[in-house]
Amino acid sequence: MGAVNPVDAVATGTAVDRVDRVPKQDRSRATRQRLLEAAVACLAEHGWAGSTVAVVAERAGVSRGAAQHHFPTREDLFTAAVEYVAEERSTALRALFPQGAAGDRRAVVAALVDLYTGPLFRAALHLWVAASNEDQLRPRVTELEARVGRETHRIAVDLLAADETRPGARETVQGLLDMARGLGLANLLTDDGPRRERVVAQWADLLDAALG
Amino acid sequence: MGAVNPVDAVATGTAVDRVDRVPKQDRSRATRQRLLEAAVACLAEHGWAGSTVAVVAERAGVSRGAAQHHFPTREDLFTAAVEYVAEERSTALRALFPQGAAGDRRAVVAALVDLYTGPLFRAALHLWVAASNEDQLRPRVTELEARVGRETHRIAVDLLAADETRPGARETVQGLLDMARGLGLANLLTDDGPRRERVVAQWADLLDAALG
Repeated sequence: MGAVNPVDAVATGTAVDRVDRVPKQDRSRATRQRLLEAAVACLAEHGWAGSTVAVVAERAGVSRGAAQHHFPTREDLFTAAVEYVAEERSTALRALFPQGAAGDRRAVVAALVDLYTGPLFRAALHLWVAASNEDQLRPRVTELEARVGRETHRIAVDLLAADETRPGARETVQGLLDMARGLGLANLLTDDGPRRERVVAQWADLLDAALG
Repeated sequence: MGAVNPVDAVATGTAVDRVDRVPKQDRSRATRQRLLEAAVACLAEHGWAGSTVAVVAERAGVSRGAAQHHFPTREDLFTAAVEYVAEERSTALRALFPQGAAGDRRAVVAALVDLYTGPLFRAALHLWVAASNEDQLRPRVTELEARVGRETHRIAVDLLAADETRPGARETVQGLLDMARGLGLANLLTDDGPRRERVVAQWADLLDAALG
């Protein structure tokens, strides 16, 4: 474990490089993450029209050049941002039920619906709606939405212990996620929390009975 | 019913005025209607950022002055447009089942979901999302959404013959309309028709059982 011989290191191209590079990579990763989080917050608050790379860079405390090094285009930045936060949320959702949901489907339904009421959903909604009118954005957002949708479905099926070989089980779970998305939309302009809680409680019961 | 005596008419202030006014009112109503329909189409196709009174007036073949006579502000025009089309759709929905739905809840669920997949939903979605970031628009759209939502709920309860005195019945219907809204959103970027049909069939069955 002695000191690295600089000459050997240069010869193999590893050790000294690595010593130099690791903190740089860390810094770079931290910058990237700050940009992604600022992008989601910006999209949620100001919508697509008010969200540019420059605005996000300033919010993240990163130079515009550094932001453009990570994300050459506006589309790159915002699709990456929604994807990043969606992945974080999926991880957090799985972490809520580390031993599985132990049959508490009501808790799972509530947690799934929560995915659609925060700043991530708001940001994704702005991106979807913008993509419906912007040719440059549409294919990327369509692809992203499909990927995130599949992953959310997979998590929901797992946590709800839904047996997808049973007729109707797959559509039951899909309809629940559609309902969750609709509840997110209903929450856009007003705080729909109290009504949402009652709807979620009722639909969780219907779901529980349907999934057996 | 002899000719109106002009002198009498002037004296009472009715007959001649009315003769003059009726076609003018008709023209005015037709102009207003053309503007409203053009506004919804414009919003659905180009989003809020691309929707101005001038663009709509041109699309409707109406002078900008005439458009501004009917709708002094952009907000007036677009909230009125979404409201007008929502009313038209409610009327059309009721007309689909003139004798009530005769217990065919699957047909009612399909018709309700259809409300959320056409240009009206797309236009309303653009308006909602714009309202979430625009202070001038937010209170009007919030109020409009609440009104349209109540009316849709009332129609759904009627057509589904849901007994709202039964515990959970109200929330069952609300959740269905939330699901329909979420299905509308899922249809924004891609044609989600085949998947939607399966989800609707499954949830119509669950709903039918739940409502008794």
